[in-house]
Amino acid sequence: MKYSAAFIKTNKSAPEMDSINATLLTKAGFIDQTMAGVYTFLPLGWRVLNKIENIIREEMDTVGAEMFMPSLSPRSLWETTKRAEIDVLFEARGANEASRKRNDASYILNPTHEEVITPIAQRLKPSYKDLPFAVYQIQTKYRNEARSKSGLLRGREFRMKDLYSFHATDEDRQQYYDKIKDVYNRIFSSLGLGEDTVIALASGGDFTKDFTHEFQTKCETGEDTIYFDKKNNVYYNQEVAPEEIKKAGQSFRASEVGNIFPLGTKFPDAFKYNYVDETGKPQAVWMACYGIGSSRVMGVLVEKFHDDRGIIWPAAVAPFTVHLVGLNLDDARVAERAQAAYRHLTKAGVEVLFDDRPEASPGAKLADADLIGCPWRVVISRKTGEQVELKARAEEKTELLSLDELGKRF
Amino acid sequence: MKYSAAFIKTNKSAPEMDSINATLLTKAGFIDQTMAGVYTFLPLGWRVLNKIENIIREEMDTVGAEMFMPSLSPRSLWETTKRAEIDVLFEARGANEASRKRNDASYILNPTHEEVITPIAQRLKPSYKDLPFAVYQIQTKYRNEARSKSGLLRGREFRMKDLYSFHATDEDRQQYYDKIKDVYNRIFSSLGLGEDTVIALASGGDFTKDFTHEFQTKCETGEDTIYFDKKNNVYYNQEVAPEEIKKAGQSFRASEVGNIFPLGTKFPDAFKYNYVDETGKPQAVWMACYGIGSSRVMGVLVEKFHDDRGIIWPAAVAPFTVHLVGLNLDDARVAERAQAAYRHLTKAGVEVLFDDRPEASPGAKLADADLIGCPWRVVISRKTGEQVELKARAEEKTELLSLDELGKRF
Repeated sequence: MKYSAAFIKTNKSAPEMDSINATLLTKAGFIDQTMAGVYTFLPLGWRVLNKIENIIREEMDTVGAEMFMPSLSPRSLWETTKRAEIDVLFEARGANEASRKRNDASYILNPTHEEVITPIAQRLKPSYKDLPFAVYQIQTKYRNEARSKSGLLRGREFRMKDLYSFHATDEDRQQYYDKIKDVYNRIFSSLGLGEDTVIALASGGDFTKDFTHEFQTKCETGEDTIYFDKKNNVYYNQEVAPEEIKKAGQSFRASEVGNIFPLGTKFPDAFKYNYVDETGKPQAVWMACYGIGSSRVMGVLVEKFHDDRGIIWPAAVAPFTVHLVGLNLDDARVAERAQAAYRHLTKAGVEVLFDDRPEASPGAKLADADLIGCPWRVVISRKTGEQVELKARAEEKTELLSLDELGKRF
Repeated sequence: MKYSAAFIKTNKSAPEMDSINATLLTKAGFIDQTMAGVYTFLPLGWRVLNKIENIIREEMDTVGAEMFMPSLSPRSLWETTKRAEIDVLFEARGANEASRKRNDASYILNPTHEEVITPIAQRLKPSYKDLPFAVYQIQTKYRNEARSKSGLLRGREFRMKDLYSFHATDEDRQQYYDKIKDVYNRIFSSLGLGEDTVIALASGGDFTKDFTHEFQTKCETGEDTIYFDKKNNVYYNQEVAPEEIKKAGQSFRASEVGNIFPLGTKFPDAFKYNYVDETGKPQAVWMACYGIGSSRVMGVLVEKFHDDRGIIWPAAVAPFTVHLVGLNLDDARVAERAQAAYRHLTKAGVEVLFDDRPEASPGAKLADADLIGCPWRVVISRKTGEQVELKARAEEKTELLSLDELGKRF
């Protein structure tokens, strides 16, 4: 893609924001803040978010069917589950008198979808023959946060994958739950977070009284402190860590990237959703939900992978593999060679961002490449002659290669 | 995909709903109503919506960059453009006392995004060198409808593609506008609506005092009446049709599937967004927006393409190309042949929905295939022997083919 056609604009002088991820993603032109905790994903950012979500989607498709639930739901569903009073709920209602005159109702703007999926499951899956099953979606969620800071790490509006599973027995739920842990580990490995992500026990909040499992990625700027119980090889979120473990003091800062909630029979019970067993008797349905905050993952990646020049994206989620920088483009021969390199790489299936701006200075272009953080930088200039200069974003050394040699690298 | 694993469940006895599209899509298991005007897209429906949106996306990528704006925005943006009082606006605010105590603010839940994109353009694209440019997104929109009827044709929450373009002059805007008309015509042709879709002049509503262009698809159950001025070869929405044209009485019912609004300089002016010309002088920015309601298109397709047995999807948006029905699956040889056909077609890259349910009756399976409406039905049973029975959804005649012959058909 050509820089000039991609609605890309870095803004190195943008003010420092509430977090490293917000500052770097804004300066590099990936996101734009509409209000506190609410961001636009600009074309560069939307590419990265899509890559993250497609990595998640590919794994999810092996364990459940994708669907798409609405963001609005009737308040009555939340009254049924006794969650209408939880303090992160937004309502949607007419924004002014004219609108409220038109329709005076108030709806819930969903922060999660147990209240929507459970009645659907009840309508469509009444029999033991239907169990177990699992469905998932990737979409926007809403939370009325008091203060919204930390950029993409805690938004009033954010993207999330949520999977829901339904089972005839708690044992079956536990089996599936273990399968999803493996799936999650594969996802976080693909996202470049595998080595630094652990499963920690945590509180169930509004969902359950049981422990839940959080996937926590080691991150100096993370919001959580995780304690390690070396003897039993168990990680605890500080909110539930036993005092003796806390005293031992083996801890690190981390950021939550995923979670698994065993929900028991709470939501099916609230909706009187029982399945009919082989003998015709009603039986309790067991349920669990499994989240990954895809926009939050994007923020965590930036918190972890950056230096003082900009972002360093893991290859799997980088907006482009190669950032092709054409310098001295006023020289017709250099311009021709840059175009040739662009065609050559694109034809080979390499995702290339081609900085074809005639007016930007060499310094500005090289600084933009560092800021945006694609894994590879290729420079073509009067100086490189018939060759091109290749440099990995994370390293200092450069190589001179022919176009053919370059093509073989990707 | 196997029926048993796909969270598919037809419900032939579901009650009649407010429209043909809602009734058929619900009975066939594509959507589930959460509340009036708000639907879940079940896995079958999500597949269709994705196909529609990907057809739109592919064409849009040739004329603009994809991004993703938030659904929440500060009320002040809408006050700036004097649209905070329009009667379809929803606000999002704390849903209960605890939530409003946490954060008392009220935000707008966007029905459209001029108020978000214009300040972004202002921040990122200040110079004549940046113009023209265009960006688009595909996402969920919200409208506080008084009454919500007509299924997917008019929802409180719905899916939409919206493209925004910015120009240095009105002439440049007009040129781009004409290009998008061609792009839209290609999209509606790909969606199977080409022959029946016309461009009609209509009112600009809250957007503009000029005429706007609506893409109207002929549809007996459509909400609009379109008048044809034969002499000048112009179509008018009834709301703006000149009286003499109305009297001539050449009209038909239609459903709006897309629209183009020339916005003039209204939104850039409101935000004081001027571009700097070659001489350093500030100049007005011209703007237009271009919508396609992707979930509405799905509803219109069902309104137009169905019979008394169910839906008849155009091939390009059908959830699957082939609905493979295995009858007599208790017979091991038949079951083996059905599995072989499934593998054969899947390997050949054909999208197959395999009804592998052992317990459903032949009549129920064949009725489900008609209801779901994939373009081709393949039946394997004791009766078809070593062959398979092929039938187009829209036709009555069947053919007997070998597996090899079948593979060559797709």
